[in-house]
Amino acid sequence: MPMKKKATIAAMIGDPSGIGPEVVVKTLATQALDARVLLVGDTGVVADTIALLGAPLTARRIDDVSQARFEPGVVDVLDDGLLDRAACPLGQLSPESGRAVTAWWDIATRLALDEQVDAIIKAPVNFEAIRLSGARPAVSTGVDQTHLLLVTGPLRVVHLTDHVPLREVFAHLRRDAIAELIRLTDASLRRWGVAAPRIGVAGINPHASGDEERLEIAPAIEMACSEGIDARGPVSPDSLFRQCIDGQYDCVLAHYHDQGHIAVKTWRFEGNCALVLGEPFLRISVAHGTAFDIAGRGIADHRSMAAAMRHAATLGGAQGFPAD
Amino acid sequence: MPMKKKATIAAMIGDPSGIGPEVVVKTLATQALDARVLLVGDTGVVADTIALLGAPLTARRIDDVSQARFEPGVVDVLDDGLLDRAACPLGQLSPESGRAVTAWWDIATRLALDEQVDAIIKAPVNFEAIRLSGARPAVSTGVDQTHLLLVTGPLRVVHLTDHVPLREVFAHLRRDAIAELIRLTDASLRRWGVAAPRIGVAGINPHASGDEERLEIAPAIEMACSEGIDARGPVSPDSLFRQCIDGQYDCVLAHYHDQGHIAVKTWRFEGNCALVLGEPFLRISVAHGTAFDIAGRGIADHRSMAAAMRHAATLGGAQGFPAD
Repeated sequence: MPMKKKATIAAMIGDPSGIGPEVVVKTLATQALDARVLLVGDTGVVADTIALLGAPLTARRIDDVSQARFEPGVVDVLDDGLLDRAACPLGQLSPESGRAVTAWWDIATRLALDEQVDAIIKAPVNFEAIRLSGARPAVSTGVDQTHLLLVTGPLRVVHLTDHVPLREVFAHLRRDAIAELIRLTDASLRRWGVAAPRIGVAGINPHASGDEERLEIAPAIEMACSEGIDARGPVSPDSLFRQCIDGQYDCVLAHYHDQGHIAVKTWRFEGNCALVLGEPFLRISVAHGTAFDIAGRGIADHRSMAAAMRHAATLGGAQGFPAD
Repeated sequence: MPMKKKATIAAMIGDPSGIGPEVVVKTLATQALDARVLLVGDTGVVADTIALLGAPLTARRIDDVSQARFEPGVVDVLDDGLLDRAACPLGQLSPESGRAVTAWWDIATRLALDEQVDAIIKAPVNFEAIRLSGARPAVSTGVDQTHLLLVTGPLRVVHLTDHVPLREVFAHLRRDAIAELIRLTDASLRRWGVAAPRIGVAGINPHASGDEERLEIAPAIEMACSEGIDARGPVSPDSLFRQCIDGQYDCVLAHYHDQGHIAVKTWRFEGNCALVLGEPFLRISVAHGTAFDIAGRGIADHRSMAAAMRHAATLGGAQGFPAD
């Protein structure tokens, strides 16, 4: 088992024209976290957001993570000093925001790759702003294949495939790929402090009764079990997610985008966040967007960011999933 | 619009060895219903269940629906007098139970076909008991194609396909079939007293973005709209069900078994019940089984039967869906 510790988290503030800075500051002002958190972004944006919200915090610019003090009431902001704030007005799409978030996310990724932080969090970015800017990430994680782990409270779902047309999912449903994802899930959860991960694996047909269960999914589960992994199933897809909510599994495996997303977003949209499996570090993002229409009004819902921070704190500290 | 009225409901008590009689009696004892309810089954079983639960009710045998008095505190039981109770002990699988429920369900179906009742409800039966008995339904509804409408509170989902392997769903995803189901849903809801049904139609691919949406689903929605039906979509499958819960639709259309069942059973398993679209009468069943392991102990959860009765009362009376 990895040693429990207090996690260090770098949270990138997201598109400065959107609600990202607001949900980050709200979380820092209201969420008790047993972790050391620094922000990556623009100090002025953070300071203005603190003022907007009347939060009992002060923004403090740092140029290197070694300068972070993690003092109560003081928010360390790792700031490259490059943001042209006049070029990214609140509530508006701008190439400058797209450029800035790309650069900030490179900084956060580099901190994670260098193990200077235990987890990185991405507040909402706007993909159209990034496209307009022409910016490309400069830091590579060196990983080709990742898998989305969508979480809301006790419901945690890792996905075999993501944005694949449903008709094409069957070509990905191979025993080796499923077994590999079970192994990756088990290893990731152990690294995050879940002592003996219980992994429920969905079937793909009604009542988990069909060719794919017999030929691919069940053999994959058998392979994983023979290696000492606690994988169970194939479970009827319409029962699995409720069983996870009820505490029978630490995580469940869905085979296609909507199998998992329907469960998570229908059960409890609020407070859901997205983790990534397959990278050498812990990366978490929130499931909502920049919400330009309400940016700067102080009314953004920060529950997803709060969930992201709680997960970064406990998983990054090898303490397992947070209590709901 | 159909005229609102007080509905007459026939509830078949289900397998006498299971929890069916218990959930029926519990519902009658605790649920205020603006409806006239009679049971179809064995009077002795109902009387013993009333005694077991200490319910303030009396069972009264009738031989014909015309004898029903629907008096407060008295449960009219339409009883064919054929049950051999010694042959169907509590908590045990028996051919006699299978024979009895098949005969009782024929009686209920005949009442509905003859318009002597407005809705029929089926308490849990055991399919293995029916198979062992060799009994076959003698009353035909004359309908080939029906569709399941699964309901829990404000989340109501009609299914294009049922127990079809996921791989074969695409062959059923044809614009004519989808348009026909939208029409059937609209007509059924209107008959049940929903004045202007709003029907949300799911896509089938992630974010409702793919060939099937463009070639089949969107054209089906257009056909329905051109006929004056309020059909909307295709909606991203991971957003549609939450939107229905939030009140944006009266009913949503799912294309395959798990698309709808994952949403309903994950969101709120308790109190879900199943209606059938496509028959000339209203038929409702509960989504759980006979639970032989807890039969006769008085601990069965009757929330699904209570939901079934509430739906039979308001839909059977052309009063729309019950308030949650």
